[in-house]
Amino acid sequence: MDAVSARAGVHRATVYRRWGDVGGLLADVLDAAGEDAWQPPDAGSLSGDLAALNHEIQAALTAQPPIVAALIAASFRSEKADQAQQRLWEDRYARCEIIVSRAIRRGELPSHTDARRLLVAATAPLYHQLLILRTTPDPRLPEHAARTAALAASAGAFAEPPSSGGT
Amino acid sequence: MDAVSARAGVHRATVYRRWGDVGGLLADVLDAAGEDAWQPPDAGSLSGDLAALNHEIQAALTAQPPIVAALIAASFRSEKADQAQQRLWEDRYARCEIIVSRAIRRGELPSHTDARRLLVAATAPLYHQLLILRTTPDPRLPEHAARTAALAASAGAFAEPPSSGGT
Repeated sequence: MDAVSARAGVHRATVYRRWGDVGGLLADVLDAAGEDAWQPPDAGSLSGDLAALNHEIQAALTAQPPIVAALIAASFRSEKADQAQQRLWEDRYARCEIIVSRAIRRGELPSHTDARRLLVAATAPLYHQLLILRTTPDPRLPEHAARTAALAASAGAFAEPPSSGGT
Repeated sequence: MDAVSARAGVHRATVYRRWGDVGGLLADVLDAAGEDAWQPPDAGSLSGDLAALNHEIQAALTAQPPIVAALIAASFRSEKADQAQQRLWEDRYARCEIIVSRAIRRGELPSHTDARRLLVAATAPLYHQLLILRTTPDPRLPEHAARTAALAASAGAFAEPPSSGGT
């Protein structure tokens, strides 16, 4: 809040009056981040689209200064920021579902594919490595995680309904 | 720190003298957590082992009070806790590698399988859903994520060296 008031050239109390607390400020930042025209990459194949998406995620999570990582970390500490972060995730994953519908149209995936589960499987290893395990970023991980999810998808991992439990 | 000093019946200053700050206290908690005899489940198959492991992870991350989730969240705020958390992750994933070596011995996986990448792929969706996306826990997710990783593994997703970029 101090940095924001200093940068804006206003009194600290003005910032608190506008946003209440850090959580309210962060919630507005997160909501503003969702009001863009971002669309997932279109590389012409499922694994290409997922790899390009993962490269964007890895770049965002390893950027300096670490704005995205700091917003995610801050959302652990504020209910308001947490809810805004959840709205942003929901919006981003919903926009990404077109990756799966394009793959279905191309005949790469069965028509009853759970898009959200596939997208979470493809992207989760990046968030896990970079935010939770916090190991050194692996430049091959975006491709690897994309390829793993695409292979699993081809093997029927995200087909639904699972009806009789078949592959 | 207040709760710890109250529970121990000592002065707040005594707790600070012992641990320096909250990060030091959390680091000791995390290091103590790693000094157990925990071994990954042995269910007789790769997907069974991964599913049982994921059930343990989901139970830990959704337990009340949310001790594991709180420790992970706290590790974002303290360098010392972060390093202790990283030691704990490294130890846990290293112990889990036996799941992959058993699967190789059974002939379920090629002998050159990257155990760590397979284990991260199998478990990452749980951490992502429960800690980052914070959606309602899905009781089917432990099985789904395990099956997805096992299917990808059978399709060669974690085989290494990738030599000529095969599969």
